[in-house]
This record gives sequence, C-alpha cells and structure tokens, in this order.
Amino acid sequence: MRLTNYFLPTLREIPAEAQINSHRLMLRAGLIRQASAGIYSWLPLGYRVLQKISDIVRREQNLTGAHEMLMPTLQLAELWKRSGRYEAYGPEMLRIKDRNERDMLYGPTNEEQITEIISDTIYSYKNLPKILYHIQWKFRDEVRPRFGVMRGREFLMKDGYSFDLNPTSARASYNKMFISYLRTFARMGLKAIPMRAESGPIGGNMSHEFIILAETGESKVFFHSDYLRFDPLKEKVDYSADLSKDVALWTELYAATDEQHDEALFREQVPPEKQHEGRGIEVGHIFYFGKKYSDAMKAEVLDSNGDMVGLEMGSYGIGVSRLVGAIIEANHDENGIVWPAPVAPYNVGIINLKIGSKECDEISEDIYARLKEARVDVLYDDTDARAGAKFANMDLIGLPFQVIIGPKGAQKKLVEIKTRATGERIECGVSDALCKLMA
Amino acid sequence: MRLTNYFLPTLREIPAEAQINSHRLMLRAGLIRQASAGIYSWLPLGYRVLQKISDIVRREQNLTGAHEMLMPTLQLAELWKRSGRYEAYGPEMLRIKDRNERDMLYGPTNEEQITEIISDTIYSYKNLPKILYHIQWKFRDEVRPRFGVMRGREFLMKDGYSFDLNPTSARASYNKMFISYLRTFARMGLKAIPMRAESGPIGGNMSHEFIILAETGESKVFFHSDYLRFDPLKEKVDYSADLSKDVALWTELYAATDEQHDEALFREQVPPEKQHEGRGIEVGHIFYFGKKYSDAMKAEVLDSNGDMVGLEMGSYGIGVSRLVGAIIEANHDENGIVWPAPVAPYNVGIINLKIGSKECDEISEDIYARLKEARVDVLYDDTDARAGAKFANMDLIGLPFQVIIGPKGAQKKLVEIKTRATGERIECGVSDALCKLMA
Repeated sequence: MRLTNYFLPTLREIPAEAQINSHRLMLRAGLIRQASAGIYSWLPLGYRVLQKISDIVRREQNLTGAHEMLMPTLQLAELWKRSGRYEAYGPEMLRIKDRNERDMLYGPTNEEQITEIISDTIYSYKNLPKILYHIQWKFRDEVRPRFGVMRGREFLMKDGYSFDLNPTSARASYNKMFISYLRTFARMGLKAIPMRAESGPIGGNMSHEFIILAETGESKVFFHSDYLRFDPLKEKVDYSADLSKDVALWTELYAATDEQHDEALFREQVPPEKQHEGRGIEVGHIFYFGKKYSDAMKAEVLDSNGDMVGLEMGSYGIGVSRLVGAIIEANHDENGIVWPAPVAPYNVGIINLKIGSKECDEISEDIYARLKEARVDVLYDDTDARAGAKFANMDLIGLPFQVIIGPKGAQKKLVEIKTRATGERIECGVSDALCKLMA
Repeated sequence: MRLTNYFLPTLREIPAEAQINSHRLMLRAGLIRQASAGIYSWLPLGYRVLQKISDIVRREQNLTGAHEMLMPTLQLAELWKRSGRYEAYGPEMLRIKDRNERDMLYGPTNEEQITEIISDTIYSYKNLPKILYHIQWKFRDEVRPRFGVMRGREFLMKDGYSFDLNPTSARASYNKMFISYLRTFARMGLKAIPMRAESGPIGGNMSHEFIILAETGESKVFFHSDYLRFDPLKEKVDYSADLSKDVALWTELYAATDEQHDEALFREQVPPEKQHEGRGIEVGHIFYFGKKYSDAMKAEVLDSNGDMVGLEMGSYGIGVSRLVGAIIEANHDENGIVWPAPVAPYNVGIINLKIGSKECDEISEDIYARLKEARVDVLYDDTDARAGAKFANMDLIGLPFQVIIGPKGAQKKLVEIKTRATGERIECGVSDALCKLMA
C-alpha cells in the first residue's frame, strides 16, 4: 500500500479524552475514530488488525473441530425471559422495541439463542458432542464507557458454545477450549496465563479467565513464575486425545487476579523467588455451567438407553476488539505501538527519505514491488513529508520492520533496516534487505 | 469436513412459512434458521457461502484501490438530523434509546457517518480521491419481512463511498465501481446487467441497479439480448485508466426493470429478434449524488487555488446476504440448490454408500484425505444413512461435484463422479477422479 493513496489519518496531538495508552495510541495511529460514547469506527489500518486477530481465532477454533456460524445481533426478549436472564441482566442490556412494538435486544451474549437452535435440531446423543462459535458484534450499555475498545459498548467477541451428553464429555470440551485459548493467544505473540475465576452472570461450576500480562493492565495478578517459561506452542496438539494432563499443567500452580487472590495461600504454595506479581488484562473467559440453560430451555436429547437427558453446556469467549487494545497495552513504548508480527497491520514500512531523488525512488519502488510480489504486507511512505515526520509516524504505527532509503546510502545502493521492537538499525544492500524481510 | 462431525440440520419437509424457492431451499439445506421475523442465524454451511461471497466482493473492491474499514451498527440520531434524513427515513429506521436516553438508531446505510469521518480527517485536495467501503450488518424494519434473506430486516451489505474534488473525478470513481460491480458478480458465476435506476431515498443525479437474471426473480426486465454475450472478465482492467468507454458499452443498449421500462422506446431502439424479456433480482445499486451530503454536513477541502470546496460523493451497495438468496433463485432445480463453483460452501461431496465395507471406506478415506491435502473444500458423507437419503441430501445442498463410492465399483477400484448442474455421471478410477476434481 502506498501511503499517498491510503486513508491513514494519524494525529499529532494526544487526544484529551483518552485516559490509557492503548486508547491514545489507537486514536493517534489512525486505527479508530469514536462514533459515539463507547462506539468506534475502525479505519483501514485498525480494521486490518481486527481481521488478523479474528483470523487467528478462527484458525485455532477450527483446529479443535468447532464450527463457525453467525447469529444475528438482535434477539427476541422472549428468549431471554425463558432463561430468566431478561430482568436479571439489568440496564447494561440494550432493550429495543421494533415498529410492531415487539420487545427485542442487542445481544450481549448468545447462550439462549444457540441453545434454542440446538434444541430445535439435535435430538440424539449420536449428534454430540458439538462446539459452535461465531465472531459477532455485541452490545453492553456501559453506564460510563471508557478506555477505548477495552471497555466499549459495541464490541466484537468470539463466543463459542459446547453441547455434550454428560459431564465427562463436557469436561473434555472445556479442556479443548482451554488448550486452544492458550495457543490462540500465543499465536498472537502474547503471553496468556489462565486464572481460576468466578462465573458471574453466566453462572456455572467452573470458569477460567485468560489474562495477558501488561504493565498498564487493569488488574493486579499474582502467579507462580514458572508459568512464564511454559510454551503452549511447543508441541502439536491432538484435540481428539485426553487433554486433562495438559490442562493440569496450566492449572496446578498458583495464579489469581486480585479479585480471587488469597495472599496466605500464595505465600504457602509458591516459593518466595517464584512469587510473581504484575498487572494483566482479561482477554478470554471460559465457563462450564452444566444444565443451567438446557434445563430452562428444555434442550434435551435421547441417550443410548432411549432416555431424554438435558445437555451439558459450556461457553467460551474471546474479546476480539478488546484484544486490539490489550495487545497495545502489552506492546508499546514512548514512540508508539510495537505490534507483534502476527497481528501487525503491515509487516514492513518503507520510508523513502527523498521523494523525487532518482536513486531513492528507484530503490524504494524496487523493494516495494519485490516485497509485494513475495506477499509481504508492506506500507510504502511515498509522501513528501519531512524525514522527522516520517520516522515519527512509522514508529507511531509500529510495524515490525522499517526500511529506510536515504540519498547518501542510495548512491552506494545501501539501505537501513530498523527493527521497531529493539530500535536496532543495520545498513545493508538491497538484496540482503529483501532476504531479511522475507524471512 | 466429515458429515458425522458437522452441524448440518437439513429438513425433509418443505417449510410452510417460506413462499419462494430460495427461502425454502435455504431452510431445507440447513443454511439458515429464523431467529425472529426477518432475522436469521447463519448455520455453518450457509455461513461459508456468506464468507465466500464477502471475500469475492472484498477482493474486487480492493483491486479498484478502495479501502476496507468498518463502521459500527449503531449510530447517533444527531448525525441523521444534520443530513435531514432522520425524520424522512420513516418507520423502517429502527430507533433506539440507550440507558442515558440518548437517541440512536441501527444503521440502514452510512452516508452520514462516513461523511463525518472524512470531513474530520481530509482537509486538502491532495488526499483525494478516496473510496472507502465496509461490509457490515444493517437493519431495515420492514413492516412485513418475507422471502427469507432476500428481504430480511437484519442484512449484510457492502456499502462503499467515494469522495472527489470535482464532478469529472467523481464520474471516474463511479465508473470504477460500475466496472468492478460487473466483475464482482461475474466472479460469482452470475450474469448481471446494469440498468438505469431512480435514486430514491439516497438522492442524486445518476444511478444504476445491477440485476441478475433468474426465472423466479422479483422484477420483470427488458433488455437488448447482446448484453447476454458480453463478458466483463474477458480482459484485465486497469482501474487507473479512463473507463468511460467500458461503461458506455454496458449502458448504450436498452435495459430496464418494469419500473423504468418504456415499451415504445424498447421497440424503437431494439430490433425485434434482440428484444429480451425476463425476470431479475437487484443485487447491487450505485449512486452519484454530488454534494447532497457534503453540503449538509460541511464536508469541504481546500482545492489547489486555496478555496474551500464541497466534496463530490457517490455511494455503492452490494446486498451480500441477499446475494445468497438471489444466487439460489438463479441456480436451483427440483432437487435442490446448484451452487456456482466460486460460492459453493464445499466444492466436492463424497458419498460413501456402504460405511463399514472395507473397500468403500478405504477408497472414500483415501479420496477425502487427498482432496483435503490439495486444499479442495470437501464434505464427506460418512454417515450410515440409506443411499437414497444420501443422494437426496447431497443434491439438496448442491455442491458442484459428487464422488459416489459404492460396493460394486469399489471392488473394481471404480468410483462415479456426478456433476450436480448437469446430472451427468461418469465412472472412473480413483486417480482419474482426483485429477478431475482437482482441476
């Protein structure tokens, strides 16, 4: 993409309304613009990140055997009256009347809707287990929306739902999602630690939050530092196998957010040199709640004895739009965003320091064409802005690598490659640069 | 995908509530389920088609230099009051009050919102022209929703917007979208004909509808039959070139829906043997409306003389969810859907007629594994259903090719390939079959 053609309205000023780093940086780097309180438009650069995150989520979900579908944003209030949550949900639920005065709502989650679909279509244990998910916009009418996409009103979530015949099988589904979540966040270049959690308004028996570490995170977290050494991508996973040992590995050491933290237990279970305190951000949450919804909504199947039994259910959420903010909280410096490569909107930014110079233009165009040909996502700053502004802008938007073409080097056919995360700059020839950037 | 693992709840009965073929077939083939009047959940098979259509739209849009972004579903009423459309839009606009009693609405289209974004971010003619688009759910509160996704309330639309300095440049943007729409529909295996149209509630000076032909279409259409011979994909397009001649080719012959039809003109302009009457479905609509919104919302830039001038705008819509229904209306027979290959949810269906037979299982598994390896989208019916039910089901869901493995043939290492569109069946060896299916 050539910057002269692109739509990337970056801001020089720090927006006064933004209180946290990720919100400021998302506005400044031209990723989003506020449409109204807690509701954002995703500009092209931000939308690319949102899509890259969604694609990683989708790929990892599909590997578990989960099926993607899409439920609508608006739901009937009746459905929620049947589960008993319509009144219970409170003013965060956006209630709507259509032109026929029918009570509807903008879905904050989809347990009721998916349970109805399953109870209408699955009659036999032979069609179980099933895990279904969708990536869809939700609405939660926060009284005081803030922190940008970290606590928006209209937000994008992956929510998945498992349906099993019995608790043993349900636990296996839960384990699949547990492991898949660890891998999903690791694929984004994030370190996520599962922490036992309260079930809250979803209800149920077992629940884990997935917390990524960020110095500026919303919650204090306490955990055994061995978790920092575990790598969920170390081995390939066979999702048809028993994953309980893998889950045990990730749950037997101490890990808790401040809400659940028990200082005495922490001191007792974790040796002093392994007691890690930090801050984190919740990016995923999984729940096993048995028959809570299937009982309320009569979602039953015939078991192998011919008896009707209620379905065992779990639900599994990833905050897709929230992740954009969370990733920035965990990956930025004083100059801007530092994207992990897998979610970067472009992987390479080309800075031509002297547009109009024959040498600079030729080398820049050549590198641009060859990277595109090699299907490297590349953004070429071909504007006539000053060098300083170009450097600042490229640092702000945080692409993993920059190629800098200046008149002095260009005469000797040399360019500079800068690694955004470390600031390291190396000078090299064009073909060396291409090798490095295509690696 | 193995059918035993999949979630594909097909229906044997013809749903009484569905009045048109596409709606009946989408329910029967397990593509969608109704959530409430005019609002549908997309089941896995249907969601795959929706994604394939979206991907084709996205690819063709990007080729024109348009940029993808994403605006939210909910908008502020204030925005629409500024353009004067808030009252004008009538009861089809879903009006919402949030918990702070703020007037909002579920966007039926986004002219106001994108104009505000552009007027806040683009100040100079140097940053023009721009075309931006998004693929997002819309809501239109139809008084009597019907015909399934063809006239739903919550529907997926690609809407794009062009911003230019002057009418000449705006016309060039319009031409880009015009040609790109022809190519987009052709990529889906559809024959689309542009027809001059009224601008309706969008307003403006020039407008074309894109109509695909279907015997069961909603509108009568009258056109010069030479349009049937034109192929928009015949040559590569250079979107930076002047496309007015290409547009002229597609607009100078007579073509009109019944609303715009002038019988006398039709008889006068088209030789009798070329007068084609048929039925069609609107799947796209493009508008050039000049300064209608930029004047109302003060979207201005500095021109090269340093004067402030209002932006010239156009808007460009494709009914993405509607296309799923429209494609089925244009491609079905008495046994079910007949997907054009580019939008088929899977390209090949494997029917193992005797699960448990060593020969049948081995050949089926081998073909399944090899097609997956070659990245062919394949659905394997590995259920123990009767042969008749398997044939009927596979015809109903309409994948382009079926591979049928029966016990007799399997002993001789022979399989049958059935082409869904023609019904043609040929017997061949496994490697011949694979060659044909990977072609």
